[in-house]
Amino acid sequence: MIQTLDHGPVRELRLNRPPANALSPELLSALRAGVENAPCAGARALVLSGTPGWFSGGLDVPHLLELDRPSIANAWRNLYGLLRSLAVSTVPVAAAITGHAPAGGTVMAIFCDVRFAAEGELKLGLNEVVVGIPLPGIILQALRRLVGPREAEKLSVTGQLIAAEEARRIGLVDEVVSPERVVERAIAWCHGILALPPRAMAITREAARADLVAICDGMEGELAGLVEMWFSDETQRVLREMVARLARKRT
Amino acid sequence: MIQTLDHGPVRELRLNRPPANALSPELLSALRAGVENAPCAGARALVLSGTPGWFSGGLDVPHLLELDRPSIANAWRNLYGLLRSLAVSTVPVAAAITGHAPAGGTVMAIFCDVRFAAEGELKLGLNEVVVGIPLPGIILQALRRLVGPREAEKLSVTGQLIAAEEARRIGLVDEVVSPERVVERAIAWCHGILALPPRAMAITREAARADLVAICDGMEGELAGLVEMWFSDETQRVLREMVARLARKRT
Amino acid sequence: MIQTLDHGPVRELRLNRPPANALSPELLSALRAGVENAPCAGARALVLSGTPGWFSGGLDVPHLLELDRPSIANAWRNLYGLLRSLAVSTVPVAAAITGHAPAGGTVMAIFCDVRFAAEGELKLGLNEVVVGIPLPGIILQALRRLVGPREAEKLSVTGQLIAAEEARRIGLVDEVVSPERVVERAIAWCHGILALPPRAMAITREAARADLVAICDGMEGELAGLVEMWFSDETQRVLREMVARLARKRT
Repeated sequence: MIQTLDHGPVRELRLNRPPANALSPELLSALRAGVENAPCAGARALVLSGTPGWFSGGLDVPHLLELDRPSIANAWRNLYGLLRSLAVSTVPVAAAITGHAPAGGTVMAIFCDVRFAAEGELKLGLNEVVVGIPLPGIILQALRRLVGPREAEKLSVTGQLIAAEEARRIGLVDEVVSPERVVERAIAWCHGILALPPRAMAITREAARADLVAICDGMEGELAGLVEMWFSDETQRVLREMVARLARKRT
Repeated sequence: MIQTLDHGPVRELRLNRPPANALSPELLSALRAGVENAPCAGARALVLSGTPGWFSGGLDVPHLLELDRPSIANAWRNLYGLLRSLAVSTVPVAAAITGHAPAGGTVMAIFCDVRFAAEGELKLGLNEVVVGIPLPGIILQALRRLVGPREAEKLSVTGQLIAAEEARRIGLVDEVVSPERVVERAIAWCHGILALPPRAMAITREAARADLVAICDGMEGELAGLVEMWFSDETQRVLREMVARLARKRT
Repeated sequence: MIQTLDHGPVRELRLNRPPANALSPELLSALRAGVENAPCAGARALVLSGTPGWFSGGLDVPHLLELDRPSIANAWRNLYGLLRSLAVSTVPVAAAITGHAPAGGTVMAIFCDVRFAAEGELKLGLNEVVVGIPLPGIILQALRRLVGPREAEKLSVTGQLIAAEEARRIGLVDEVVSPERVVERAIAWCHGILALPPRAMAITREAARADLVAICDGMEGELAGLVEMWFSDETQRVLREMVARLARKRT
C-alpha cells in the first residue's frame, strides 16, 4: 500500500493503493508508522506522495460503512494519529500532491510543512460537508492556519473542490508544478532545507509549527463526537447515497 | 425602508431608503428584526442588498447629530444589535453590495457569511477615522478576521475607501460581479448552500463562525465608550464640518 | 551614522553607515534614541530610510563576533529596545526600504506602520537560519502578524531572501515604488496620515497595533536565551565561516 523510496537522506512515502489511494484504517496505520519510523531509519526529511492522477481520495468510505462503532473509533484514531505524527515530526515533511486530493487527501497535506501540487486537472479541498460529514474542529483550525478565517469558512462550509492554481492563490498549496516534476520538486525542497545549519533550522521550525502542534492537543477530546457524528442519520444516509452513486457509475 | 423579496427559500432584504440607504436608528432596528424573524417566516437563507449605486452610506450622520445622549446610546445599541444578529444568524446571510458602501455599509457586510460586490465605480471601506470616529474595537476585530492584521491596520488607520477589485484582492469582498447580476449571484450562492446536507453544513458553519460570535461578546462593554466618543470635541467638529460640506454641495 | 532630515512635521532618520548600514550596538542605540526623541522634537511622523542599494544589512556580525557575553547581551537588548520603540511609537513610522534588507534590515521594517520598497534588485527577508541563528520568537510572531502563519513558517525556516514584488505579494511589504521615489512616497504617506483627525487616527492606530505591542512584552524573557544561542557551537561556526567568506570575496 505504501512504496518507500530513499533519495539520499530524503525518504519518499508513496501511496500506492489503487485505484484512488483511499485511506483504509490499515493504510492510515501504516502511513503513521512510516512517518514515525523514518527518522530512526536515517531519513532526515520526508516526501508524502501519491500516484499520477490521485494523491489520495480520502477516507475509504465503502469500507468504513461496514464497520461497527469500535472499529470506526479506531479508524478516526488512526487518522488523527497520522495527522499528529505529521505535525510533530522532527524531520520536515513535504506533500507532493500528484493528483486529486479531496477531503482526507487535502487533510493530510495541511499537516505537512509544504505542499506542491501538480498543475492540470486535479481538484483538492475539504468537501466533507458535501458528503454529510461536518468538518472536524481540529481540521478546521489547521486549515485556518494556512488560509485564514475567511477562506477557511468558505472552503469548509461550501465543501467546494478547487483547482491547484486557485489553491495556490489562497494559500492551500504553496507551489504548482508540472505533474512529472511534482515529486522531484518536493525532494529538491527537502534537500534545500537539509543544506541549512541543522540546529538553527530545527529550532526555528519547531517554533513556527508550535501552533499546529497545539491544535493537535484537542484531538483526544474530539474523538467521541466523531463516532457519534459518523452514525448520525444524515451522515449515514448521504454517505450511503454517495457509495451507491459511485457503484452505479462503475457499472 | 426595507423591501422583503422571497426567492423560494431565500429571502432578500433590500435596503430602500433614498438617496443613500443611510442607517437611521429606525432602519437599523427594522433590519435587525428582518434578520432575526426571517427563519421563523420560513426563510432558509438571507440576502442583504441595496439599490443600484448605493448599498448603504453608513450611519445617518445628519440625523444622529440632532440626538441626545440616550438616543445616541440607543442608535449604537441598534447597530451592534444588527451586527450581532448577522453574526449569530442560524441561516446563512450573503451581502449583495450593489453600490457604494462606506463605513457602516461595509461594517454590515463584514458580519455576513459572504460578500459579492458590483464591479465598476463603487467604493467601500472603513472611513470612520476620516470623519472623526475612531474605529470601534469590535469592528476592527471583525475586519481583521477577513483581511488579517496588516490590511486591517492599514484600512482602519488611513480610512481609505477602495474599489471592489482591490477589496477582492485583500479579502474584504469575495467576488466582483457585474452590477446587474450581483443580487442574482448572492441568491445563487444561497441556493448552493441550501443544496448541501443541512446538518453537516450548519455544524460546520457554526464552528467556522464561532470566532465572529466571540468577538460580539465584547459589544456590551464597548457601548458606553462609544457614546463618550460620539460627543467628544473632535468627533462632533469633524462630523458637523462634513454635514455642512455635503449641504453646500447639494445647493 | 544617522542623518536626521525634517520634511515639515515628518522626520526622516536615514541610516548612513557605509557600506551596508550594518547595525552595530552604537547604531542600534542611536536609532532607538532617534525614534524615541522625535515626538519631543516636534516630529509628528517618522520615516526610517537607508541609502541607495542598502536599507540595512542587519546586525554587524564581524564586529559582534569580537564581543564577550555582557556586550552581546547588550547588543540584543539594544536591538529589542529599538524594535519596541518602533512598536510603541506614538507617531506613525514608515519604512522606506531603499535597498537590500536581509535579516535585521527586514526585522526593523516589520515593526514599522508601513513598508515601501524600491523596485529592482533588492532582496529582503529573514535569513537568520542561513547564517546559523534560530529566528527569535518575538520576531517570528511579528512576522506572522504581517504575512500569516503559513508564509511566516516558510520564510523563517528556509531563510530565503525574496524580491520586492514577491514580498509585496505575500504582505511583507505594502508597496513597491521606483528607487528614486521610495523615500518621497514614505513621506507622502506620513503627510496623508497627518491630514486625518488626529485623535480618531491615534486611537484607531493604537488599537490596530495593540497586538504588536503585546508581542513585545515577551522580549525581556527571550534575552538570556539569545545570548546562549549566540555562543552555541553551530551559530559561532556558521557566522565565522560567513565572515571569512565575505573577507575572501573582498580580496
